[in-house]
Amino acid sequence: MTDRPYHHGNLRRALLDASAQLVGERGPAALSLREVARRAGVSHAAPAHHFTDRRGLLTALAAEGWGLLAARLEDTRAAGAEFAELGVSYVLFATEHPAHFAVMRTPGLLDDADPDLLAARDRANALLYAGAGVPESDRGLAASAGGRGRVLAAWSLVHGLAVLMQEGLVVPGPGEDVAAVARAVTAQLRDA
Amino acid sequence: MTDRPYHHGNLRRALLDASAQLVGERGPAALSLREVARRAGVSHAAPAHHFTDRRGLLTALAAEGWGLLAARLEDTRAAGAEFAELGVSYVLFATEHPAHFAVMRTPGLLDDADPDLLAARDRANALLYAGAGVPESDRGLAASAGGRGRVLAAWSLVHGLAVLMQEGLVVPGPGEDVAAVARAVTAQLRDA
Repeated sequence: MTDRPYHHGNLRRALLDASAQLVGERGPAALSLREVARRAGVSHAAPAHHFTDRRGLLTALAAEGWGLLAARLEDTRAAGAEFAELGVSYVLFATEHPAHFAVMRTPGLLDDADPDLLAARDRANALLYAGAGVPESDRGLAASAGGRGRVLAAWSLVHGLAVLMQEGLVVPGPGEDVAAVARAVTAQLRDA
Repeated sequence: MTDRPYHHGNLRRALLDASAQLVGERGPAALSLREVARRAGVSHAAPAHHFTDRRGLLTALAAEGWGLLAARLEDTRAAGAEFAELGVSYVLFATEHPAHFAVMRTPGLLDDADPDLLAARDRANALLYAGAGVPESDRGLAASAGGRGRVLAAWSLVHGLAVLMQEGLVVPGPGEDVAAVARAVTAQLRDA
């Protein structure tokens, strides 16, 4: 290719965008590097310069998704909003970035040791724990621990609502937007 | 086929069981009648005697799933358990019948006018509404209505937890079982 349409940084971006499009159409499991290259309009060998394989590509997309979510949660916190608003932001993120959200939900297809993925996910999780008022020392695995029970409940609540909407099992009523539905639902969580 | 291994009722059962197996392995979207026949060990024309097409087969599986869920919720109510226990039953159902649960979550692949599906779904929904203390007149669409907000929150909560577990994003801690996690999470919902 002498007439390469993208330079390095743009190509990576173009490949991620093409991947998100294809994931949105057919889900993460159906993605192939060859098809991503075709959709992005580049040589079929181009993706391998940036991502070793499909797992690498999906992992990059998931890391980007967790980063987008973390940034959104940071904005919400910076605006001084209460814990429930973090949940509303989660649902809005999932609605606005359905392909990223879908990839983040398929850990079996990802490289779980990827440092970018881990860093982005930890960043988002730390915001949720801090928002719920769970001290650092209580951020273990056991769901029955009080603090984690609250975080797990909040996560389940907004994850469930986002998934139900993505699956078309719940749709906002006439005149309602996604944020209004998310607010009505998160209001049902007990106070800390 | 002179040596038919199943009579009428058993063949339908065998086809549904084979479908549930295949859905568990590769998800609802990948199911084909031909593969179901192969897995059940019957002629490739056999499924068409019971289900017109893949949509019909998945719809029957979804209807069966909603029926299993409704039966489980009825047992829970009959035992005099409180509302949160219905949620625990929902999570246990999803964990024990992952293929049925997955099919119930793909309305786009189902015949949404199928009377068996509608009846089973309504039966399960009525139990959830009644358990939440929502009067018949309040069972409309708007999530912002108080009663529906509570049911939608409860549904989101247990749906989210079930999905997070199915996706491997949440696993019970050491010595915990699924019911214990579900109880810790549903305890975070406000009282009516």
